[in-house]
Formats: sequence, structure tokens, C-alpha cells
Amino acid sequence: MIKIAIVGFGTVGQGVAELLIRKREEIEKAIGEFKVTAVADSKSSISGDFSLVEALRMKRETGMLRDDAKAIEVVRSADYDVLIEASVTRVDGGEGVNYIREALKRGKHVVTSNKGPLVAEFHGLMSLAERNGVRLMYEATVGGAMPVVKLAKRYLALCEIESVKGIFNGTCNYILSRMEEERLPYEHILKEAQELGYAEADPSYDVEGIDAALKLVIIANTIGVKASYEDVEVTGITQITPEAFQVAAEKGYTIRLIAEVSREKLKVSPRLVPFHHPLAIKGTMNAAMFKTDTAGSIFVAGRGAGKEETASAILSDLYEIYAGPR
Amino acid sequence: MIKIAIVGFGTVGQGVAELLIRKREEIEKAIGEFKVTAVADSKSSISGDFSLVEALRMKRETGMLRDDAKAIEVVRSADYDVLIEASVTRVDGGEGVNYIREALKRGKHVVTSNKGPLVAEFHGLMSLAERNGVRLMYEATVGGAMPVVKLAKRYLALCEIESVKGIFNGTCNYILSRMEEERLPYEHILKEAQELGYAEADPSYDVEGIDAALKLVIIANTIGVKASYEDVEVTGITQITPEAFQVAAEKGYTIRLIAEVSREKLKVSPRLVPFHHPLAIKGTMNAAMFKTDTAGSIFVAGRGAGKEETASAILSDLYEIYAGPR
Repeated sequence: MIKIAIVGFGTVGQGVAELLIRKREEIEKAIGEFKVTAVADSKSSISGDFSLVEALRMKRETGMLRDDAKAIEVVRSADYDVLIEASVTRVDGGEGVNYIREALKRGKHVVTSNKGPLVAEFHGLMSLAERNGVRLMYEATVGGAMPVVKLAKRYLALCEIESVKGIFNGTCNYILSRMEEERLPYEHILKEAQELGYAEADPSYDVEGIDAALKLVIIANTIGVKASYEDVEVTGITQITPEAFQVAAEKGYTIRLIAEVSREKLKVSPRLVPFHHPLAIKGTMNAAMFKTDTAGSIFVAGRGAGKEETASAILSDLYEIYAGPR
Repeated sequence: MIKIAIVGFGTVGQGVAELLIRKREEIEKAIGEFKVTAVADSKSSISGDFSLVEALRMKRETGMLRDDAKAIEVVRSADYDVLIEASVTRVDGGEGVNYIREALKRGKHVVTSNKGPLVAEFHGLMSLAERNGVRLMYEATVGGAMPVVKLAKRYLALCEIESVKGIFNGTCNYILSRMEEERLPYEHILKEAQELGYAEADPSYDVEGIDAALKLVIIANTIGVKASYEDVEVTGITQITPEAFQVAAEKGYTIRLIAEVSREKLKVSPRLVPFHHPLAIKGTMNAAMFKTDTAGSIFVAGRGAGKEETASAILSDLYEIYAGPR
């Protein structure tokens, strides 16, 4: 019986809970029986014997869970085998670092969707996991359901990855695709994106390139380029004009916010992309192009955000930990 | 010490040998020490203590290996842990079926790039592997270095894969992309492709859709749709005219040879694809779009053929068998 604790019970945590409820049969067929033994957010929690369906309902109706114990207490003392750490990303790592560290120290596997801790302490946390004989999985931190982490770590493990160029922020890609189509000013399209729910009221985390840079740091460390957030040269999309799209189009190019890592480069910036290049992808999609020595160029694309897509990436990590060879 | 036998010593088998020589250090770091204990083709072989570099040279210079023992004898009696089966695909399965079956019966892992055996006996061979407690891996059979098999079997294991639409033949995609650009007749572009080495002197295996259909059968069985070659409705690209591209372009479409599998459909045929759709990919690339319930649509693309790319997919299977958790 696999005992699962979920910490962080906002969109992602709730999405995981929903999939665990809805897909219990398939999941148990693949990885064996499981039970959610604790759920916590920063203010409240529930653990022991409880109904996950009830916990979801209580959180939605009251904003709280049953008990006073906070996330950190649950991480330290609840009975679980794997921690799903789904709290909200903070650029400095935030409380998530403590949740992950405490769980690893107790010899528990961790699956996280939280970029902050990995950006702040990638190698420290990885070696803590190794020393304790457990896994720290983080597919959901980059590109939602797009399989970039496992592609880099497993599938391309025997290749040299020379560079990764990616579109890691759906908000920026939506705004740029729409500017390309409509030739309207940035502010106009940003407003549209906000109305559609593709951009936050304060969009700076996305449009300044911060989110893409955090993901780039995670990918860089994954492929063996040691990097921290300060190492990334970041330019956002707020200064791009409809005229820039016009000039680019005349030469057969569009503009996309590209995050790139190689031995020489760690950079997030608006770049010219030929119309027919795979990275000229439109809408809220995320995409990544891996350049390798022997496997050539491998391209992947998928929904980079969304409750179900992120939860689905978390489940793929659970599968990787617990499923046998296939 | 992992003991590897290579059967089939044409382009792919030699490509694997070259990578095993060139990347020995990285490979051993990832999966442990290995030794190639036997190499065979349909007429000759070498086994026991020998230099792989020498074997490669002898094969290239004389077309033969040192000993008279043929592939099937080597498979049956050589000392190895994993068989790399890289013989040429035959639609009816060919000798490859016997190589794979005999190796599995002896409790040896098999990694194959040969589509024939999997198309002819997918479920029989898979359950033979399972009964003998070994793995039968086949990433290299579909899409070269493009990670479709592991994507379907592992990454998306907890998703329902509703459909896969793919471009699985680089020759057809090259011809169609060039017809799109040049608006010249099929015969003209075919000749160009033959001169460039992208099409065979007898191109029917590619242009009639046979190769794409074989790969589709493998993908279908991988995602749980039981299928044999006879179940696929196949139309090739030989009847497509420059005028068809003209008419399509006026509505914003191009034409690609699409292989599609879902619960209702198993079909290879030329299809209209919107210009900006990821499957409108150009050149000799392969591509696949997975439609899933919870991970949304996942798109992958890469070099579908080539000695190093195919060898690289075989190495990724070796890694999957022998590498520990990462």
C-alpha cells in the first residue's frame, strides 16, 4: 500500500486529488494500491483516516481543512511514503524547500510541481535524495504535461545534449501569437489575455520572463549545466511592438520568447523564429527543441499549464517511482 | 558485466557498434561495464574474445565476419545477456521472429530495430518476454530517435491515449514537402529524392505507405489497440498532383501522409493539414501527435531514420533495461 501525502492544496494539489479519485482503478493497476494519508496547506490539514472526496469539498467550501496542524508539521510527522509537494512557486524557494528537505531526510520520495525549491537548491536537494535512497521527481515544474525532464534524464541519457531551446511560458506565447496575427499593441493583447484568464492581473511574473527563466534553470541543471537564477540573462516581452512583427514578417520570421541553455549560454529573450520552424508554435503551448550529438534534434510540445495537465505530469512521476519495468 | 550480442550487421548494427566503441565511457558510467560477446549476420559471425573495431573493419572490407556460424546459431548458443536484433525488416516477420523468440526463450533481453517481428507477432513475443522475466524493447522500430514508444508506454502510462496521428515515413514527407514548395509532379520530386539518397531505387515500400503502416501497427498495439498489418487501410502518395497542393493551399492547407490510430480508425493516407499545424512539418522529419484525456495533446518530432539516430534509440532501450532509477 503506497501512502501519499499532498502538501499545497490549491489548483495543482486539488487537481492531483481529483485524478487520484477519478483514475484510482487504472493507477492501482499500474503501481499497486495507494491511500492518501494526509493533505495539508499552509494553514490547515487533514490526516489519518479520512475521505479525500470530503477533504476536497471542505477545502472548496470553507477554504480550510479539518485540523490546525500546518503543512510543515504534517511533512514532519504524518505517515506517508511519498510527498506530493504542490505549493505555489516562490522565486527564493519559499517554504517548499523545507517541505522537500524534511521529507527527503525522513527517507520519503518527493514529487514536486514547485519550481522555487529546485531553482534555489537543485544540487543540494538532489544529493539529499540520493543520500537517503529516495527519489526527487519534478516533471511538473517545466512545461506542464510536456515530457521534458524525463526526455532529458532518461530518454537522452546516453546522448550529449548540446543545447535546449524552449518556449516555457504559455502566457507570453499567447500574447506574441496574437500580436503576430493582429498586429495590435502589446497592452491591447495583454488585456485580452487577462480577460481570457491566460494572464494574471499582475502579469509581470510571466511577461518579464521570470517564469521562463526559473524553468530554464531547472532544465540547465538537469542536463548538467550548473546554474542559478542570477546566471540567466532575462529580457521579457513588454517592449515588443507590432512594427517589430511587421519587419520580421517581411523576412519570413515571427517573434517568440525563447529560453536557451547550452555550455555557453543561459538566456531568456524575444528571438526571431522562421515561420516554419517548430518553435513558431502558436497559442498557449509550450515547446522545446533538444539538440543532441547522436539523436539529432528532438522536438516536443504540449500544454504547458492547466490543472489536469500539471496533475498528469505529477502522476507520471508517481508511475516512474512505483511501476516496474515495462 | 553486461554481455551484448548484435545480430544483423548492416547499417543499424554497425551504427550500434560504432556508438558502443565511441561512447564506451559514458555508457559504462550509466549502465555499468559491458562487452560485445558476439556479432552475426545471416551468413557469418564472430564470438568469444574479439575486437569490435576489428570486426567492423573486416565486415566493411570483406562483407563477412570471421566464422561460419550464422545468426540463428549465435542467438541459440552464444554467451550474452541482451540481444540487439538489427536485421532488416520483412513484412512477414522474416528470420527476425526466430532470433527474438529464441533469445527470449533463453531468458535474454532483446532490443530490436526490426519492425517485422513486432508487426507479425506483437502480443506473442511480448508475453514470451514476460513469461521469461526479460524485456523486449523496440523504441528504434518507430520514428528513429523520436521518443514515441517510451512516451506511450511510460510517460503517458496513466493517461488514456485517445488517438495518435503521425508522420512515420521521412521519404514521403520529403517528397510531399518538396511538392508543396515547388509545385512539381510527383515523378520529378521522387527522382530528386532518389538522387539525394532519401528514396530507394524501388521506392514502393515507402511511397505506397507500407513502412508507415508497419509502424502504425506497432504503435497501435503499444497503446492497446490490437491490430495486424491487414487491419490497416493504406493509401500511398503516388497519386498526389501539384494541383492538389494548389487547391489545398488556397484554403490554408498542405498535404501530408498521416498514419492514424484510435479505437475506431487504423489508417495511413494523404490528409489535409493546416499550414500552421505541427504535423505540417517539413523535410525528412517524423512527427507524432498523441491526444490524451488528462495530459492534453503531446507532440513530438525528430529524425525518423539515419544510422546514428536509430542506433541512439537502441542505446536508449539498453539504458532503460540496465540503468537504475534517476
